[in-house]
Amino acid sequence: MRTNIYVVIMAGGSGTRFWPYSRDARPKQFLDVLGTGRSLLQMTFDRFTEITTPDKIWIVSNEKYDQLIQEQLPELESHQILLETEKRNTAPCIAYAAYKIMKKDPNAVLVVSPSDHAIFKEKEFVSVISTSAESAASDEKLITIGIRPNRPETGYGYIQYISDPGVPIKKVKTFTEKPKADLAAKFLDSGDFLWNSGIFVWSIDSIIKAFEKHEDEIAGIFASGLTEYYTENEQSFIKKAYSQCKNISIDYAIMEKADNVFVVPGDFGWSDLGSWNALHEIKDKDTNDNVTEGPVMIYDSKDNYIKGKKNKITVVQGCEGMLIADFDDVLLVCKKEDSSVFRDFITDVKSEKGEKYV
Amino acid sequence: MRTNIYVVIMAGGSGTRFWPYSRDARPKQFLDVLGTGRSLLQMTFDRFTEITTPDKIWIVSNEKYDQLIQEQLPELESHQILLETEKRNTAPCIAYAAYKIMKKDPNAVLVVSPSDHAIFKEKEFVSVISTSAESAASDEKLITIGIRPNRPETGYGYIQYISDPGVPIKKVKTFTEKPKADLAAKFLDSGDFLWNSGIFVWSIDSIIKAFEKHEDEIAGIFASGLTEYYTENEQSFIKKAYSQCKNISIDYAIMEKADNVFVVPGDFGWSDLGSWNALHEIKDKDTNDNVTEGPVMIYDSKDNYIKGKKNKITVVQGCEGMLIADFDDVLLVCKKEDSSVFRDFITDVKSEKGEKYV
Repeated sequence: MRTNIYVVIMAGGSGTRFWPYSRDARPKQFLDVLGTGRSLLQMTFDRFTEITTPDKIWIVSNEKYDQLIQEQLPELESHQILLETEKRNTAPCIAYAAYKIMKKDPNAVLVVSPSDHAIFKEKEFVSVISTSAESAASDEKLITIGIRPNRPETGYGYIQYISDPGVPIKKVKTFTEKPKADLAAKFLDSGDFLWNSGIFVWSIDSIIKAFEKHEDEIAGIFASGLTEYYTENEQSFIKKAYSQCKNISIDYAIMEKADNVFVVPGDFGWSDLGSWNALHEIKDKDTNDNVTEGPVMIYDSKDNYIKGKKNKITVVQGCEGMLIADFDDVLLVCKKEDSSVFRDFITDVKSEKGEKYV
Repeated sequence: MRTNIYVVIMAGGSGTRFWPYSRDARPKQFLDVLGTGRSLLQMTFDRFTEITTPDKIWIVSNEKYDQLIQEQLPELESHQILLETEKRNTAPCIAYAAYKIMKKDPNAVLVVSPSDHAIFKEKEFVSVISTSAESAASDEKLITIGIRPNRPETGYGYIQYISDPGVPIKKVKTFTEKPKADLAAKFLDSGDFLWNSGIFVWSIDSIIKAFEKHEDEIAGIFASGLTEYYTENEQSFIKKAYSQCKNISIDYAIMEKADNVFVVPGDFGWSDLGSWNALHEIKDKDTNDNVTEGPVMIYDSKDNYIKGKKNKITVVQGCEGMLIADFDDVLLVCKKEDSSVFRDFITDVKSEKGEKYV
């Protein structure tokens, strides 16, 4: 275990595509989505304790989730919980963490990870991250972890790499955001495209240099906080910093511009759990491809995700490809595949019925 | 208003095809299905107060609904509530009422009616019943009320009559139970078939004679109670009588055998409310033929019946022809038309999850 690996878990997402299970007050990462007794955030934390010590696992999230994070991860000290005051996508989030950690340990190697994905082969995952961290510690590389695709998924970003057999860390050629179906099929066939997992590994030095080169405005904002981090002024500084910061992803801000971007292909049973459909894929199913939770009785139905309530009977007949998700205050019945409509549901429910339902 | 018209409302049904709205503890007839503030039983009672006085409107039901009936119809005296101890279909129910009422008023004209149907044109209904009662009082006729069909419904019984223009009371030629679709279409085309409404009009004398002739066993059982009716022994007599009685409908027992059966065609906006689908037909619908109850939001959906809960948001997308019925302890999502599967649901839920859900 390298002693200077710091893990930054990004836990500020709102998980709208999992509504009404995921709510603004308790988004997906704070839920026990996989039924293991631990939330996705807790599982992510647990996974990284194989790579570094708990004092070096830091969380960046919205300030409204401070309490939830403290409850779910009582191991953390308060300086390990970085609280954003506004949603600004991943670039500011990563810059904040990088500058703050730099002040503590300028030789740190950072691993940046989403908080709400599933990884089923932990040993393989640890191996991929360790390989990446070794490399990032010695070379000025910006490393992203790529997932070998198994289907022409149109919901993910793709990374094309320059083929170099035997070398585990591959030079990135192109990034492509969510492709159309025909393009996704070509990517799958070509063999040199990987899914973008959103997991990054780099040294403090490399990422700070990259911000300075490609996003000097963001670099300037968070560099100006070096006197404030770990002081009582940190949060008021952050409030001001975020109000000035643009909204941009790390992919757009850095990865698609930098020329020292590399990818390590991973095969560790990954799912972004990005929708009910993605969850359906990884869950145990009956012989008719139905996932059921709670006391559910099914007739003449296939390929459904039925999340019933614990003390209630859910009877389903004549359904195919549907999501039926029953909660105390919301019942949702919709096509499982149409995750794009969830934003509409939430917007409409919020405006017509009130904040409390979203 | 004739003073010797007695109305017998049959209210012992279990309303399984309306589960989970209709429950064994409170079947359909006791529910405010139409949203008027009155249950179907109460609406039936109200309707008949146009035809006779409340003291002559009697209810036959199962003993377990005694309390419910007293609550919903406090106008009734206890001798007007006839309590069956077992389900034995309509023939024993009608025989019990006929013999009991005969003891009180041998000149009574009986109107026998289900408790759980909807009738929208009350004036026309009253007229049809009055015409029938006049005729039944003077002639030994067994009169059934027929509904002019407007679609080739396969869920109803059909009555064929001998055409005799200008005569309102028509001689019945045949009864046909639930026909197949092609036969139902022929019935509709022919013009001399009516739906069997289950509403009957006859004098005490005529129906007792018919029982004596066609079902002398049932006649014997209930005739032997003449010394017990209106005494404290009535209920124990009934318990014994029902244990001996066969299970048979009035149609099989009398109507299909007797040669003095007549039908009066009615056109009074009738629905048997026999299923969620039947309820869907008569309810107000949105432009996409959706019936909604409660706070429901609909996307890309048509021809559904969505019964949401009051203090809950129900969001439905991508559904067609479905029933979505949400209750405290049961959620049902099924094809609206498949009312035949409801018996399966109930049987299975009862055996697998327990009595309390049915």
